[in-house]
Amino acid sequence: MSIKHTVRAYDAELKYLEEKIIGMGGHAEKMIERSVASIVCNDLQLAATVIADDLFLDEAERDIDEKAITIICKRQPMAVDLREIVGAIRISSDLERIGDMAKNIAKRTVALSEIRQPKTFYCRFETITTLALNQLKEVLNAYTSRLLDHVGAVRERDGKIDALYTSLFRELLTYMMEDMRNITVCTHLLFCIKNIERIGDHVTNIAETLHYIITGYHMSCDRPRDDLTYKVGIDGKEID
Amino acid sequence: MSIKHTVRAYDAELKYLEEKIIGMGGHAEKMIERSVASIVCNDLQLAATVIADDLFLDEAERDIDEKAITIICKRQPMAVDLREIVGAIRISSDLERIGDMAKNIAKRTVALSEIRQPKTFYCRFETITTLALNQLKEVLNAYTSRLLDHVGAVRERDGKIDALYTSLFRELLTYMMEDMRNITVCTHLLFCIKNIERIGDHVTNIAETLHYIITGYHMSCDRPRDDLTYKVGIDGKEID
Repeated sequence: MSIKHTVRAYDAELKYLEEKIIGMGGHAEKMIERSVASIVCNDLQLAATVIADDLFLDEAERDIDEKAITIICKRQPMAVDLREIVGAIRISSDLERIGDMAKNIAKRTVALSEIRQPKTFYCRFETITTLALNQLKEVLNAYTSRLLDHVGAVRERDGKIDALYTSLFRELLTYMMEDMRNITVCTHLLFCIKNIERIGDHVTNIAETLHYIITGYHMSCDRPRDDLTYKVGIDGKEID
Repeated sequence: MSIKHTVRAYDAELKYLEEKIIGMGGHAEKMIERSVASIVCNDLQLAATVIADDLFLDEAERDIDEKAITIICKRQPMAVDLREIVGAIRISSDLERIGDMAKNIAKRTVALSEIRQPKTFYCRFETITTLALNQLKEVLNAYTSRLLDHVGAVRERDGKIDALYTSLFRELLTYMMEDMRNITVCTHLLFCIKNIERIGDHVTNIAETLHYIITGYHMSCDRPRDDLTYKVGIDGKEID
């Protein structure tokens, strides 16, 4: 077996990991879109599809873990290749968790369908989802292009999701106080938007891993990520 | 340099990872205990300590990641040693997330202190925390002893935390419906108990990683873990 052949086989193994990650990313995107659509359109069938779809991400994560360990054993990679492989393990774990978040949202369709709300009620839930989805799409593009500027931009923009999440948290508390019949539906919706906020955090994790893959250095710790709802006091007022 | 010397140095490196994990575990336990105490006793100073304490886990996780990669590069470990090292990366990530959960709970002390509740109000919150803490202690003991039976037991018992969480979710919804002045405080408390439920999930993850380290096989997928609150409908009634 020639050295050339070995190198080509090694490249194919690294390519396999990369393509699997991209496949997981596309799958996670679709799950998020569908989970929110299942709630907005009260579509229990679609919710069931999302829940079943999660298995693909679980299996893909396990597959990447096993392949990565095999490559490390067989090829003893150094520097950038090793970062690439360890990075694939981390990113696949974040994508798998994003799938879990979408599954959690889909599961609440049943409870939310008990009190049908007009579609406009979910308008801002759709807005925050779009923000998170765009972030996910961008970080997946950055994974393909390896452009460092895009990585930083994704991380910076997570603050917007957090701010909108806090504002929605406050809004939902107000709805509950206005009419106690809103309490159950708004509580479920609170957990749904919390899931979207966490998707934003996982996208930020991916951006940070990508920065490490490309540069070999960790990003600085001053991460502009936070759930700021702990500042929401009585009647939705902010606590200093 | 003799082979004996090299082996001893390698053993010391593996031992370092193990001790660091045990240190992280003890630190995470203390953070959970203190975060809940800060809410129950309305102790803002203690809450601030928990929030500051989280940095230790962030740094320890990063340290383990870097050391693990260095060992893989330098020693090219196989079989059980490689599983041990990859396992340390995974477990430290779960412990770091457990610290985040405790930090999230501590942060809500401020909002909850706005409406002081009698200590008895937090009785069941303390009960679910004790369950999760015992699980964490047991999985850390299993990490030290490597006893497979204990690993399986920890995973099985996570269902108890989930069941209590669902029951508390329902109870808190009822409090909100009884008196709208309870809405803000109960919503914050809902997120606190959700954090405890997620700590239980991370403990289960650790048990599964430990099973993989000891046996080389992944546990079966029928994990008895789930947030079942999506079944809670109007007036706290269960949806079929």
